[in-house]
Amino acid sequence: MKFTGLSAFPLTPLFDDHVDEQAFTRLVQRLAAAGVDSITALGSTGSYAYLSTEERSRVAKLAVEHAGDTPVVIGIGALRTSQVLAHADAAEAAGASGLLLAPVSYQPLTDEDVFELFRTVTEHSNLPVIVYDNPGTTHFTFSHDLYERLGALPGIASIKIPAVPADSAAAREHVQAIRARLPEHVSIGVSGDASAANGLNTGCDAWYSVIGGTLPEPALAITRAAQRGRAADAMAESERLAPIWELFAELGGSNRVVAAIAEHLGLARRSCLPLPILGLNDADRARVAAALERIGVSERSTS
Amino acid sequence: MKFTGLSAFPLTPLFDDHVDEQAFTRLVQRLAAAGVDSITALGSTGSYAYLSTEERSRVAKLAVEHAGDTPVVIGIGALRTSQVLAHADAAEAAGASGLLLAPVSYQPLTDEDVFELFRTVTEHSNLPVIVYDNPGTTHFTFSHDLYERLGALPGIASIKIPAVPADSAAAREHVQAIRARLPEHVSIGVSGDASAANGLNTGCDAWYSVIGGTLPEPALAITRAAQRGRAADAMAESERLAPIWELFAELGGSNRVVAAIAEHLGLARRSCLPLPILGLNDADRARVAAALERIGVSERSTS
Repeated sequence: MKFTGLSAFPLTPLFDDHVDEQAFTRLVQRLAAAGVDSITALGSTGSYAYLSTEERSRVAKLAVEHAGDTPVVIGIGALRTSQVLAHADAAEAAGASGLLLAPVSYQPLTDEDVFELFRTVTEHSNLPVIVYDNPGTTHFTFSHDLYERLGALPGIASIKIPAVPADSAAAREHVQAIRARLPEHVSIGVSGDASAANGLNTGCDAWYSVIGGTLPEPALAITRAAQRGRAADAMAESERLAPIWELFAELGGSNRVVAAIAEHLGLARRSCLPLPILGLNDADRARVAAALERIGVSERSTS
Repeated sequence: MKFTGLSAFPLTPLFDDHVDEQAFTRLVQRLAAAGVDSITALGSTGSYAYLSTEERSRVAKLAVEHAGDTPVVIGIGALRTSQVLAHADAAEAAGASGLLLAPVSYQPLTDEDVFELFRTVTEHSNLPVIVYDNPGTTHFTFSHDLYERLGALPGIASIKIPAVPADSAAAREHVQAIRARLPEHVSIGVSGDASAANGLNTGCDAWYSVIGGTLPEPALAITRAAQRGRAADAMAESERLAPIWELFAELGGSNRVVAAIAEHLGLARRSCLPLPILGLNDADRARVAAALERIGVSERSTS
């Protein structure tokens, strides 16, 4: 697979503390039908960190089975290296096309710890690996030096970077500085959905997208515009989604909001996130519903 | 059990990615023989977050079996509430006297999430629960309002607070402010070993101690001095351990240092922490050995 374009991150909805396989399958099928470039199951949005090895193995299989020709990437992060390797094996057995690996931490990790983790995984697995730089959840901060060391490892295919600066010149400089550290074949993917249009317009090859896992059409509109050099159209489409980005910023990140979106649209049942995460309260759910109305997404449009 | 005095946190040493049961058993036996007030197995120092449910259940059993009359507390934290409840059940089945629960997070948690987690656990389990406030690893910050709500739950026995201020008047004010929020029966235990003498001298009832899990004698000397009102002696004994506290501060926390201490003393085999945590490099291990020499701890003295 190519690690470019739109990689859509579906939720792994739970119901009564079990994976809601029907809801997950439907999300994957919708993404494949929408024409996303890849599906990354068991990303942060997919609650990988909360699921057992057995649940993760099952979700990986379901994702590949229902994605059709769309390549599937599987998140394999865990606190312990041996657990990560077990997840990598399960993903490979399921038929995944790539692996997403975040340096999840409880005790803070050093650069050497993280380098050795990625070295071990890339030596162990035949699948290409995306380096998942997500300091908001892993509490590990990558330096450009570490990007460079990791990018030189055979088996590293892409780096998923956090949000780029809002200013487009600053974003371009930021992306170029990372690009200069990486071999040609290692792609750079932006995350932080609100900054995705800017990231794609300023040199990122991919968008690792939370919203794309639940609302693939607007995410594809942004991605395709940017890929075709229509930077202003990409920015305009992103601007149209501002009510969603505002909720991400105001309600503590994308996770609870996107779960509430899926629940509102009937794509997941109420309380689809793993406890202790309660999800949004009713007042905030009303804001989500209003935002969806403003951007023209209704229950009907997703069926 | 009373949630006061010295609670010693042993490592759960690994060897070749398996729990080194012999080394763990020996650590527990040493703590019981030294006369600590309680043993908290599977704390942060005990790598609870990295171990499987089966490993944790086995470690809980070993701790209770080998602690003699010393009460054993078991850390039950996990990312998902259902996992926490399973760990609570296993701890109770093992014969534990109490539970230690940290609000471990991947997605950031809200106060409501954390309150409901503790409410669920205290309703579910018969064992008293210590609230584990460890923002360095959980990335959750407790407010005094949340302490108050949690302290009012039947089943909450103690709050393990982070390091107190270095200034003793400020520390006293800090501890009193927390005390004012809690019922009489809820104890306050200090962590952050370097601030323990100050914490005990300024109103904390307990010390939840990393160093006490590997070097119980000096930790007991501090604790007993403070309990008997000999504040200056407690401070002097803590000052004597300054070479250790300096390493904790300079080498990224207590975890790697205390593992290196145990390895140096023959209490655990090399690389006893779970990978990807590599542990200290040789230069830093030499500093650990020198610090131990300065405080008069040798391999022989631990045998």
